Amino acid sequence: MELKKQIEQLFKAESENGLFGRDFLLTWKKSESDLRMVLEVADILKQMREQNISPKVYDSGLAVSIFRDNSTRTRFSYASAANLLGMEVQDMDEEKSQIAHGETVRETANMISFLTDFIGIRDDMYLGEGNKYMREVGAALNEGFEKGVLPSRPGIVNLQCDIDHPTQSMADLLHLKKEFGSLEALRGKKMVMSWAYSPSYGKPLSVPQGIIGLMSRFGMDITLAHPEGYGLIPEIVDIAKHNSRNSAGNFKITHSMEDAVKDADIVYPKSWAPFHIMQQRTALLKTGDKAGLNALEQTCLAENGKFKNWEYTETMKKLTKNQDALYMHCLPADISGVSCNEGEVNADVFEKYRIKTYHEAGFKPYIIAAMMFTNKFEHPAQALKEILERVNKRFGV
Amino acid sequence: MELKKQIEQLFKAESENGLFGRDFLLTWKKSESDLRMVLEVADILKQMREQNISPKVYDSGLAVSIFRDNSTRTRFSYASAANLLGMEVQDMDEEKSQIAHGETVRETANMISFLTDFIGIRDDMYLGEGNKYMREVGAALNEGFEKGVLPSRPGIVNLQCDIDHPTQSMADLLHLKKEFGSLEALRGKKMVMSWAYSPSYGKPLSVPQGIIGLMSRFGMDITLAHPEGYGLIPEIVDIAKHNSRNSAGNFKITHSMEDAVKDADIVYPKSWAPFHIMQQRTALLKTGDKAGLNALEQTCLAENGKFKNWEYTETMKKLTKNQDALYMHCLPADISGVSCNEGEVNADVFEKYRIKTYHEAGFKPYIIAAMMFTNKFEHPAQALKEILERVNKRFGV
Amino acid sequence: MELKKQIEQLFKAESENGLFGRDFLLTWKKSESDLRMVLEVADILKQMREQNISPKVYDSGLAVSIFRDNSTRTRFSYASAANLLGMEVQDMDEEKSQIAHGETVRETANMISFLTDFIGIRDDMYLGEGNKYMREVGAALNEGFEKGVLPSRPGIVNLQCDIDHPTQSMADLLHLKKEFGSLEALRGKKMVMSWAYSPSYGKPLSVPQGIIGLMSRFGMDITLAHPEGYGLIPEIVDIAKHNSRNSAGNFKITHSMEDAVKDADIVYPKSWAPFHIMQQRTALLKTGDKAGLNALEQTCLAENGKFKNWEYTETMKKLTKNQDALYMHCLPADISGVSCNEGEVNADVFEKYRIKTYHEAGFKPYIIAAMMFTNKFEHPAQALKEILERVNKRFGV
Repeated sequence: MELKKQIEQLFKAESENGLFGRDFLLTWKKSESDLRMVLEVADILKQMREQNISPKVYDSGLAVSIFRDNSTRTRFSYASAANLLGMEVQDMDEEKSQIAHGETVRETANMISFLTDFIGIRDDMYLGEGNKYMREVGAALNEGFEKGVLPSRPGIVNLQCDIDHPTQSMADLLHLKKEFGSLEALRGKKMVMSWAYSPSYGKPLSVPQGIIGLMSRFGMDITLAHPEGYGLIPEIVDIAKHNSRNSAGNFKITHSMEDAVKDADIVYPKSWAPFHIMQQRTALLKTGDKAGLNALEQTCLAENGKFKNWEYTETMKKLTKNQDALYMHCLPADISGVSCNEGEVNADVFEKYRIKTYHEAGFKPYIIAAMMFTNKFEHPAQALKEILERVNKRFGV
Repeated sequence: MELKKQIEQLFKAESENGLFGRDFLLTWKKSESDLRMVLEVADILKQMREQNISPKVYDSGLAVSIFRDNSTRTRFSYASAANLLGMEVQDMDEEKSQIAHGETVRETANMISFLTDFIGIRDDMYLGEGNKYMREVGAALNEGFEKGVLPSRPGIVNLQCDIDHPTQSMADLLHLKKEFGSLEALRGKKMVMSWAYSPSYGKPLSVPQGIIGLMSRFGMDITLAHPEGYGLIPEIVDIAKHNSRNSAGNFKITHSMEDAVKDADIVYPKSWAPFHIMQQRTALLKTGDKAGLNALEQTCLAENGKFKNWEYTETMKKLTKNQDALYMHCLPADISGVSCNEGEVNADVFEKYRIKTYHEAGFKPYIIAAMMFTNKFEHPAQALKEILERVNKRFGV
Repeated sequence: MELKKQIEQLFKAESENGLFGRDFLLTWKKSESDLRMVLEVADILKQMREQNISPKVYDSGLAVSIFRDNSTRTRFSYASAANLLGMEVQDMDEEKSQIAHGETVRETANMISFLTDFIGIRDDMYLGEGNKYMREVGAALNEGFEKGVLPSRPGIVNLQCDIDHPTQSMADLLHLKKEFGSLEALRGKKMVMSWAYSPSYGKPLSVPQGIIGLMSRFGMDITLAHPEGYGLIPEIVDIAKHNSRNSAGNFKITHSMEDAVKDADIVYPKSWAPFHIMQQRTALLKTGDKAGLNALEQTCLAENGKFKNWEYTETMKKLTKNQDALYMHCLPADISGVSCNEGEVNADVFEKYRIKTYHEAGFKPYIIAAMMFTNKFEHPAQALKEILERVNKRFGV
């Protein structure tokens, strides 16, 4: 039986679970073996669900979600993961415009955690804030647990911050693993993370940063493409470079989409706001300068308008490996002539890979569930083995 | 034991479950035996709940709700049904004013369904839109399931559209079955679906349409009463006529409430907006013409004001069979002198049947649960038998 | 085994459960033995949770929450309690500004209760309204249950009304029991419920009223301190006086924080609006007089400003027993220099007891769960014994 074997292999591979009891905030702070374990556990949980085997391990428990930004797919992914394992989602509505710190965070983190097992946080709007906020919550939870306020230390799952988007990038990686057969098969494959034009403004940097920060771990040939001035946070680019060297991969930056996509195996065209604009935006948001924000948006949109040719078109696609590079997107994409007049991707090109992008997105609930699972079970393979053996049906009498 | 016998009888009656794997959108697209099965399963589930027998069949799973209109009772009915069977409700907040189509629907339907078993949709505001939207969601789910994106095809439950309100009409039918003893006992009974005056405007057509479309299936003597110009969608009236002929019942339209209620066994007095007004309203909503909408509302309210005598009063009640026709309403009713100055029903008359309207409403959660149950179990009677035998308590240690 | 013994002792103490089938609205309507039982059951449930024993007793079921005021900690406490016992929370969003009565309450209470086990209500904004509303809901549920509309009578938990805040005061009492070793040890202890300055306006009276109404049951030496004109509802003060006499305790009122805290064992400094202001506010709210409300707020804030010296400072603390009275607060506190410029408590003093206030808050979910448990189990000790014996893990395979 396929699933049984897969769990046995995980058993052998399992050395030390570095994820046990630790928050999942940044992929580059996790060891390669830990990342592999998340992928493997996610894959097993997905198969269990498909085979009507219930991996429920909580008889009760809350999974709190804190979203400082509207979200549909990440919200549903988190709710699905929590529900699959037996937890109930409880939303914590923070005021979106407010940057909470210090006493408030310290107290609130404990007040919502007396019977909580996980806190999923999405906070991607302010540069320098989202990840910091998650670490503040984590420190407060540590204190609460150490002082006996909390019966256990709730795990934090980063559902997107200003720096990284690990549930997205890990879902993307699992998609690539499935598409190419194995992580090993990704070695040497050319992946292009490219900026693309969008009529909207201020899209976060966390997706492209998450992608280059993670995919560089597996020996891939990464090209980051964007117009001049549309750079990412320099420290994250450095991490990607460092990862590439370490994994005997390659990393380069180019300012032409055409150059970038030549012979590419994978193309991920997506809009984002330039780092320096995000910095100015954060400063203006902190002072509440609405006129300034408005002016910045206008400048930025006008600037963006110069790069409408950064669209992933049929012509671009023809330049890729076998004219058929795997197109990826975190969705929703800005599709020219469909969701906007001029956007990130041509409608025909998108349509060809549309179902694949759905598959890509479909890994996210299981990636989140796997992050939860590996946080709470010191020996995930053992736990999965026992789940398989106890045969609880997910649906049925 | 009553419940055991009832399940055994369902076993014998069970020939082919035409509901298995199919959305429940319109009662007139379902066979009579399928409708009978829903009623029977709902009744059994209700008794199980009352006898502290848990019919939980999901160890995990999401039931998504999409409400484009405010709702309390349908929302709670859906949540109760999902919870009874073991699913967690996850609300999907669509912008109310937006008519979503095409790419957005196709993508979103899949994004919220990776671990979803049911989607309940209420979309009754735009003529020609609600039911269409549900079918679009259904088509997207079909594609997702066929292409392997979704592990199973979530079922859709119509929680009210522009055409039908099947969870309401089926709850009403179960109420009638209980009040009169059997579906057979309804044959020849005179039921009046009557327009009634309300100071509010634009109430949907789906309740009266749902009632005449369903009750005409069981040989009843249906009278649809409304002032001239307050007609329903002609195609639905035709369906009711056709059903009446097929079931050897009777169907007529009259423009006098007094004439209608004479010797009636059942009276369902309820306000709705005229079809042609709803058409104009939909057109104005599509163009976002607020001034036009405002003007239309004023015209319509003035027009309504001519028919304040369409109130179900003590005098009207005296005209009915034994001066005691069963009063029905989907609630909340516009009660004269209670919830408004002049409304659909006289306060004393309402009070006499108030508790019966609560019982009527109380069937809805079980009707929804039965729609879910028959969608997912090919052999519902067998599943119910096993639930009865396994004796899981709903409450207790 | 500690837990086993504790349950056995509860068994012996258990005479008659006066909480069975009754709403928990006001602590002073409950017998002392019933209050002790809630504390004991809460303590046992907390230990079970900490020892990974699941006290889940519902296989399905809804716990409805009605909040007419924003809330984070009470909302999470209620959700946690419901989840722990196996119920799913379903929020009922009433319009905040609306005082619902009569037909609407009667009908809605039934419509949301067909499969509901508990309704938790927070309605503290209007004097003379919150508790009344809860009793109206209760009467409607009684009728629904008696007439066979509801399969069982949902219990009501008062999550804060205009008069009492029993889940808070009972959590505070359990905290005191733990801090001082037993309820008996509280006898003769000096507890000060003191008004304190806050830059905000209109804080409800229910916390101080709840505290003096409950703590006076156990022979404590209660001092209520506030500036002249900042009195509580006279009837509740009378109840506290009466309780004190009955329990051989002491109760006095003073208009000086300094006098009050001398030799105090426990100090609970918290702002509230004067009773007579709340009366005027309620009258203005009922007529929707925004200008009047605004004017009242300005007057009240100006009046408050005269009492900025009612801050619990290091100097005040030095006056207390061993210069170390237990500081209590329902949180969030107005901390001078932290959450406001000038507030209820000095930052250093608060910091010293901060973790203790977290522990204090941590009892609330279990108090609510215990209120639910004792409402539904006629013999709570027996049920707890069976839970202990069946050994269901809360988390694990």
